[in-house]
Amino acid sequence: MNAGFEALGRRAAELDDTDPLAPWRAEFVVPRPGLSYLDGNSLGMTPRRTIDRLSEVMEREWADGLIGSWSTWVGLPARVGDLLAPLLGARPGEVVVHDSVTVNLSQLVHAALALRPDRRVIVVDPSDFPSDRYVVDGIARTLGLEVRAASAVELATADLDDVAVVVRSHVDYRTAEIADMSGITARAAEQGALVIWDLSHSAGVLEIDLHRSGVQLAVGCTYKFLNGGPGAPGFSFVDSSLIERVEQPIQGWFGHRDQFAMDAAFDPHPDARRLLIGTPSILALSAAEVGIGLTVEAGIGAVAAKARSLTSFALECCDVLGLDSPTPDDPSRRGGHVSVRHPAAAAFTARLADEFDVVADHRTPDLVRLGCSPLTTRFADVHRGVGALGALVASIGP
Amino acid sequence: MNAGFEALGRRAAELDDTDPLAPWRAEFVVPRPGLSYLDGNSLGMTPRRTIDRLSEVMEREWADGLIGSWSTWVGLPARVGDLLAPLLGARPGEVVVHDSVTVNLSQLVHAALALRPDRRVIVVDPSDFPSDRYVVDGIARTLGLEVRAASAVELATADLDDVAVVVRSHVDYRTAEIADMSGITARAAEQGALVIWDLSHSAGVLEIDLHRSGVQLAVGCTYKFLNGGPGAPGFSFVDSSLIERVEQPIQGWFGHRDQFAMDAAFDPHPDARRLLIGTPSILALSAAEVGIGLTVEAGIGAVAAKARSLTSFALECCDVLGLDSPTPDDPSRRGGHVSVRHPAAAAFTARLADEFDVVADHRTPDLVRLGCSPLTTRFADVHRGVGALGALVASIGP
Repeated sequence: MNAGFEALGRRAAELDDTDPLAPWRAEFVVPRPGLSYLDGNSLGMTPRRTIDRLSEVMEREWADGLIGSWSTWVGLPARVGDLLAPLLGARPGEVVVHDSVTVNLSQLVHAALALRPDRRVIVVDPSDFPSDRYVVDGIARTLGLEVRAASAVELATADLDDVAVVVRSHVDYRTAEIADMSGITARAAEQGALVIWDLSHSAGVLEIDLHRSGVQLAVGCTYKFLNGGPGAPGFSFVDSSLIERVEQPIQGWFGHRDQFAMDAAFDPHPDARRLLIGTPSILALSAAEVGIGLTVEAGIGAVAAKARSLTSFALECCDVLGLDSPTPDDPSRRGGHVSVRHPAAAAFTARLADEFDVVADHRTPDLVRLGCSPLTTRFADVHRGVGALGALVASIGP
Repeated sequence: MNAGFEALGRRAAELDDTDPLAPWRAEFVVPRPGLSYLDGNSLGMTPRRTIDRLSEVMEREWADGLIGSWSTWVGLPARVGDLLAPLLGARPGEVVVHDSVTVNLSQLVHAALALRPDRRVIVVDPSDFPSDRYVVDGIARTLGLEVRAASAVELATADLDDVAVVVRSHVDYRTAEIADMSGITARAAEQGALVIWDLSHSAGVLEIDLHRSGVQLAVGCTYKFLNGGPGAPGFSFVDSSLIERVEQPIQGWFGHRDQFAMDAAFDPHPDARRLLIGTPSILALSAAEVGIGLTVEAGIGAVAAKARSLTSFALECCDVLGLDSPTPDDPSRRGGHVSVRHPAAAAFTARLADEFDVVADHRTPDLVRLGCSPLTTRFADVHRGVGALGALVASIGP
């Protein structure tokens, strides 16, 4: 092992010793002492409080409270939304936690199209997250609209004066590059286009201020950095100044302002609750509430600062070992993961798990993603993970 | 108390003593010995196995297995669908458990419209379940289509030759009356219209044979008679002969045949999995799997027979006490609940819970619903519940 990388190992130990967030790791189940889990950006680890909370929901609220518990459960999507709102720079009543990111994006695309009835173009980046592109393509096919390609960079200078809505991830799921949220939103607004931001890879790991960035519409997920559990619900954000004009076709009884009146016409809530659809999973929402609550309690400022430290350290490790990363060097321009590019990325990801107990993930075609989840990832995990990847790369020769 | 009703109390004891399904009640948490829970048609009781299974999912699959568990989780919507399929008379690959009933109905309405591109009418009963009507109204508004009213009775003779799709509940959520599934589907088919059946109030309590009834499209829920937990996911059914022609706009990565290829175009699964959208909640699906499994294990034939006995007995109790019910007398024409009509229904429902520990529910304007959930409801519960309701009615005088 090279001397520079050994020195970084000592740095990792020092950084872990002085990390103010280090105690949070004890709030999570650590399955094996030898594991370096670098995939909290795909699935956050299990908070101990979630296990306790779910037992309580099952045994007290469901088993004992039975149908009567719906009087509190019915408020859960909005309550968890209000808990999440400060992490996004949103206000109470602007965020609801519900359904999946794809369903939520579908709703907001329809809502945006209804707000721009004279425009027939949706812009999406062909290299953006697949589910986002698929849903845009499906809506465009159904309504006979045009789908136009533009990357985050191209959006900075694109003509958008015939565009109804732009769909854009805040953090690129492969490179971790942050798109210019304020700039893109402002340019779109000048030309009358709306932008829906997908915060799946930024919520809970970056300090986001949707209002200061001029954002009116956003969606995201809670199972990554927010540690909400496998398949935890997504969320929707709508600027309160826009909400009463938001109409979308998937109208369900949970979006109705007087749900149990069961009267003739759909009369939506005056806030983000109008985006709720069918009956939400209380088990899933309760787990999401605990996960989000941990990040709120730790403080998003501290969380985001540690994400920058972890990813800077990861890039330094990559640099010393000569690994190629497409992730930006500037910490203000990247999210909570670092990617390494190599033609054997898929095989290496499998071998990292099998031979080193280092869990990362592979994104097609040639990336190994190393997730840095501030409440659970240690600098030592990053050092060991990048070191193992470096050893695999070195083992196959130049 | 009148002598006829006292005699029915002795009958209840005999019926419970000889009930072959009686042992199943021990599989569920019974919170208080004095509780008569007659709301399993809104929220099924908590299976003990669900509490154990969810602990296992959280502690072993999520906490220990972490991201690696997705290799099995990814198959869960289809696996639970295949478990449910025999209860519906469906074949493997035709049912997926996912999202909510409203989202699933939205998908199938869009799919049906795409299969009948020259028709611009959707038929729905103005007295059908509100969420079903709302979603139809929202889609019609977005696409500029006509919504036409027709009850189940009217559908038997309606002109449907300009209708794209009929949305219809199998069991009426208020009266429990069963719609003529075969007859309505056949009449619609003769005239080129598709029918989407909502099985929310019949799945897990009636013997359903979708194929013998000619049904091609259906949705339903798993939190009622299937005991899947609060807000448990819905399901979708598509006849396998139709599935490859099913297109709908909410295209998500779980509907893609090679999800992790993340390639350019949406290429849907060749079976019902193409209806999957975003990442499903594994906690919610795991609970649904247990609930559905209990009914499969008990046998839908025995479950449906006990539902008929319980509801017959409930109607007999109502009759002896002079309570007015809109629920059909013919056991082959009703689902798993019995409704009682009274102007004070809302107040009575609250008083049943507060004064008698009898949990039923109120449906606006004037119905008390008494749910008969075959794995958990005893004949004695029905007797005590109807008796308490009779006492409340008698107490306010004629």
